[in-house]
Amino acid sequence: MITATNPAVDQAQIVKLFDHWAAAIRAKNVDARMSNYAPNVHVFDVLEPLQHVGSNAVRQRAEDWFSSFAGDLNFELHDLRIAADGDTAFSHSLNHVSGTKKDGENLDMWWRATVCFRKMDDQWMVTHEHNSVPFNSQTGKASLYLKP
Amino acid sequence: MITATNPAVDQAQIVKLFDHWAAAIRAKNVDARMSNYAPNVHVFDVLEPLQHVGSNAVRQRAEDWFSSFAGDLNFELHDLRIAADGDTAFSHSLNHVSGTKKDGENLDMWWRATVCFRKMDDQWMVTHEHNSVPFNSQTGKASLYLKP
Repeated sequence: MITATNPAVDQAQIVKLFDHWAAAIRAKNVDARMSNYAPNVHVFDVLEPLQHVGSNAVRQRAEDWFSSFAGDLNFELHDLRIAADGDTAFSHSLNHVSGTKKDGENLDMWWRATVCFRKMDDQWMVTHEHNSVPFNSQTGKASLYLKP
Repeated sequence: MITATNPAVDQAQIVKLFDHWAAAIRAKNVDARMSNYAPNVHVFDVLEPLQHVGSNAVRQRAEDWFSSFAGDLNFELHDLRIAADGDTAFSHSLNHVSGTKKDGENLDMWWRATVCFRKMDDQWMVTHEHNSVPFNSQTGKASLYLKP
């Protein structure tokens, strides 16, 4: 296969997509958050289970997550790196969220995010996403309060 | 940029690389495990901290991990999916390890693995890797005993 590629254009498209998502998350807008997910996306989430398959699970997770916040939700991507060529791309970043949960908890959490894309009908679509926090081998607890 | 790509060849190269790694892990061979890591690889590991940068950290982690096992280590990749085009590729899988640790613990654990590659000098090199287990929101514990 011979493909004409322009990594600078691809990177700019993906940066724009992340800007769109970040705005969607801050606005707790599920539909906007769901743009650019392939129907059969494989998701490894911070919470159980091991794996979700399908964008319906991503939507449910976004609904649950957004509705757990009492008010505004602050969200940023840090240290974003993107690689793209032809119809394949991936990115990784350290993501930061803060806000007050409905149960009164003040959440201030960083997690690791890897997002993998295929270009379909000239659109970058997420076919795989991996979000996690590490754990502490002494306590067996998820490390929810680490900072970069 | 115009690139001639052959996704079938790329996929076969990456499958072969995973076969090589799996053999290295089963043999607890650090040098063989370290093949195909870019010097500036960004790694999100199952254990703290949030992030490692550089292949030296990957080597240290492999040494620590292999030396924690008393005897043989069983290792397999399941549900491996690979996408590749041009000089960019990614994969994800559910990885299974079992064996007896030096402290007597019988480890039998699944984790989620995402591996991201750039082609450099005609070799697929890992520039990003993300390994994790999810956690249980009720207990705050890392979920070390989930099965697919």
